[in-house]
Amino acid sequence: MHILVIGAAGMVGRKLTDALVKAGEVGGKGIERLTLADIVAAGKPSFGGAVETIATDLSAPGAAAALVGKRPDLIFHLAAIVSGEAEADFEKGYRINLDGTRELLEAIRKESVKSPYKPRLVFTSSIAVFGAPFPEAIGDEYFSTPLTSYGTQKAIGELLLNDYSRKGFLDGVGIRLPTIVVRPGKPNAAASGFFSNILREPLVGQEAVLPVSRDVRHWFASPRAAVGFLLHAATMDTAALGWRRTITAPGLTATVGEEIEALRRAAGDKAVALIREEPNETIVRIVAGWPRNFDARRALALGFKAESSMDEIIRAHVEDELGGKIGG
Amino acid sequence: MHILVIGAAGMVGRKLTDALVKAGEVGGKGIERLTLADIVAAGKPSFGGAVETIATDLSAPGAAAALVGKRPDLIFHLAAIVSGEAEADFEKGYRINLDGTRELLEAIRKESVKSPYKPRLVFTSSIAVFGAPFPEAIGDEYFSTPLTSYGTQKAIGELLLNDYSRKGFLDGVGIRLPTIVVRPGKPNAAASGFFSNILREPLVGQEAVLPVSRDVRHWFASPRAAVGFLLHAATMDTAALGWRRTITAPGLTATVGEEIEALRRAAGDKAVALIREEPNETIVRIVAGWPRNFDARRALALGFKAESSMDEIIRAHVEDELGGKIGG
Repeated sequence: MHILVIGAAGMVGRKLTDALVKAGEVGGKGIERLTLADIVAAGKPSFGGAVETIATDLSAPGAAAALVGKRPDLIFHLAAIVSGEAEADFEKGYRINLDGTRELLEAIRKESVKSPYKPRLVFTSSIAVFGAPFPEAIGDEYFSTPLTSYGTQKAIGELLLNDYSRKGFLDGVGIRLPTIVVRPGKPNAAASGFFSNILREPLVGQEAVLPVSRDVRHWFASPRAAVGFLLHAATMDTAALGWRRTITAPGLTATVGEEIEALRRAAGDKAVALIREEPNETIVRIVAGWPRNFDARRALALGFKAESSMDEIIRAHVEDELGGKIGG
Repeated sequence: MHILVIGAAGMVGRKLTDALVKAGEVGGKGIERLTLADIVAAGKPSFGGAVETIATDLSAPGAAAALVGKRPDLIFHLAAIVSGEAEADFEKGYRINLDGTRELLEAIRKESVKSPYKPRLVFTSSIAVFGAPFPEAIGDEYFSTPLTSYGTQKAIGELLLNDYSRKGFLDGVGIRLPTIVVRPGKPNAAASGFFSNILREPLVGQEAVLPVSRDVRHWFASPRAAVGFLLHAATMDTAALGWRRTITAPGLTATVGEEIEALRRAAGDKAVALIREEPNETIVRIVAGWPRNFDARRALALGFKAESSMDEIIRAHVEDELGGKIGG
């Protein structure tokens, strides 16, 4: 089969590509061809089949049609500019996150008109489609009232995915990803970065800054779980979804304090002592509008699996990123 | 004040224009200027102030900017192609109902960049943003899973209205209108037409066809109530909405059987005998996916008012359309 990954150079895209290359198959079908697209060229994995890396802007005229013209059987659409950037640059956010997605859907529809074509399309949405105030746990039928342009663009993507699926142009599955911890790599400027920083840095003997109080609660899954969601979405029987094609992925609700206690169990007091509390009112305010907890029973019933403890999330990071070794 | 009505030639647009002209003011502010836009020129009302009628396609390049460039203080955006047409012509539906709305919002945003400008924008959404299966009564926090492209386009309009309001480009209020009965005029091909036909035609001594069974339940308001919703949306304090700018309007849940009994009370057995039952499987199937009942407590708390009986709805029709007189 031929798989197209759009947004292949991002963190989740790279993890997904690695998993695809390692497995060599999806749902029992061998992967013969991988097309890896992103705004910058993704790294070329060492893979027995055909691999093509393409630097392209999905929102540019003809870009989506060029990708879809290759008629991939399975498309992962992970490409987006992040929340902070979409909020700062209104036009760019709508162009990349809304128009880019729509161009992709339209390219698939137009390709299907030429000759029968109906790829599985896995779309990464986000819990940012929800905006405060919330119930204690957000259920599967709760409404989308995003408080960011990014969340708005993702919510629109979900609606379009449903409609294009309903009309038979494609076979879509949307996944609202939890906040991913532990994100590998360097600390970044994302408002949510500290959730990872306070684990990742102390685990290698480095200092990390905590800008909010320890009682802040949020919704998490590991990069490993995120890849698992995408692969399950790629292979599941979509008849079970009806025309409600987007799922809130399962995750773990935990406080910053619970993160810290899991870090202590994994790496001791010395690691915890590396966390410097430096309250940042801007981040405190942003985080106050984020979801804290979900009742994701639909995803669980459909076979999606996430971690059930912060210890497990830390263990996944230590195994996948640190070769099993903790310490600086 | 200067009011722009987009979709002024439609049924609700004409009723709204009449109400504006009659009142001469909105929220205590005199109306000096009316701009009436639609795909075909609206009729010119006799009005003391300035009136301009414009035939324009909102989705055409520059069309929205030309309207918004007149800097109306209050904009009613009622324009849309209907459900059946949007379902039959996918491209046209997205062009008119989604791109047209987005062009309008973008024109307002760009106008606000030139010099401070922040009009009140009243947008008519629809209960078609909901798709079966439903709870017994749909609450104010229920999710949008439309089963038509029309409903999808309206749900996207709601999300955009929220985001543009949140960013401060405009002051938006969306209203999800119930199915309007009794629609004046001739029977039309809309799947929902029979809800009006079975009252309107017998009230003037004409036959009407009932294509579904009498236990079909749906959600209704009169044209008079719909105009009331729009005027209230135009003048309400939007601070109470937060960034949840769209409201399910209040309405009346009633069965076809209850419609018929109200007709009997108003016009007797002779009128009821004019209803011919002719089951139509296509219409039965379409209607089965429609909402039946809402718990619209948010709208009621915000001061929106609808009829509380089918008798009242029939009375509004007899007063507004038949000069108080029943019979053929």
